[in-house]
Amino acid sequence: MSLDPAIASRLKRNDAGLFSAVAQERATGDVLMVAWMDDEALARTLETRRGTYYSRSRQQYWVKGETSGHTQYVHEVRLDCDGDSVLLVVDQEGAACHTGTHTCFDADVLLPAE
Amino acid sequence: MSLDPAIASRLKRNDAGLFSAVAQERATGDVLMVAWMDDEALARTLETRRGTYYSRSRQQYWVKGETSGHTQYVHEVRLDCDGDSVLLVVDQEGAACHTGTHTCFDADVLLPAE
Repeated sequence: MSLDPAIASRLKRNDAGLFSAVAQERATGDVLMVAWMDDEALARTLETRRGTYYSRSRQQYWVKGETSGHTQYVHEVRLDCDGDSVLLVVDQEGAACHTGTHTCFDADVLLPAE
Repeated sequence: MSLDPAIASRLKRNDAGLFSAVAQERATGDVLMVAWMDDEALARTLETRRGTYYSRSRQQYWVKGETSGHTQYVHEVRLDCDGDSVLLVVDQEGAACHTGTHTCFDADVLLPAE
C-alpha cells in the first residue's frame, strides 16, 4: 500500500524513517498509547481505519488488536505542525494496553495530580 | 538537576537519549503537542511543574512559553508501560502551537472525522 505523495511530502521522519503516533479515545479523550509508524503503517491506517503501527523491536507492522482482539477503529487522523507526529482519534475495543489496563499510562505516575 | 534514579531506571531512551512527551490539556482533554525529553528535561519538569523539553534541531532545552508567554503548568506526569513516553496533563496558557492554533494538530487533517 502506498501513501498519498501529498501526505508523504509533509512528513518528517527520524533516521529510521519513523514518526510517532498518539492514539486518543474518542469517547473519553483519554490518551491511550504512543507508538511508531512509517509511511506504510500510516497508509494502511488511512486505508483500513484500523490502527496499524511499526514495531521497532520486532521490525514489523502490527495491527492493534490483531492478536488480543482489542482493536482500534480510527475515526480521524491529524498531522502536527512540524510533521513528525500523528494523532489518531479512535474507538478502542477493550484495554488499549497489553498489560490489560485501559491506557498505557495508567500504571506509573511520576508526578501525582494536584 | 538530576532525575530520581528510581524513575531514570524505568525509562527507555532512544539512541539519542530521548523519549517522547505528550502534553494533554487538563480542562478539555485535547492533545496539545508532542515533543522530546531527556532525563534532564523530565527532572526539570517534575521539579518546576513547567513543561520543559529538549529540542533536537536546536540541541537545547526549552521551557514551553518562555518566549511566547504560552506556558504550561504541569499537573500530572505519567510514564507509559514500556517506559518510552510520558504524558503530561497540563494547564495551557494561550495557544499551545507556535503557529498560533490551540493545538499542534489543528491544521492538518489526514483523515477527516466520520
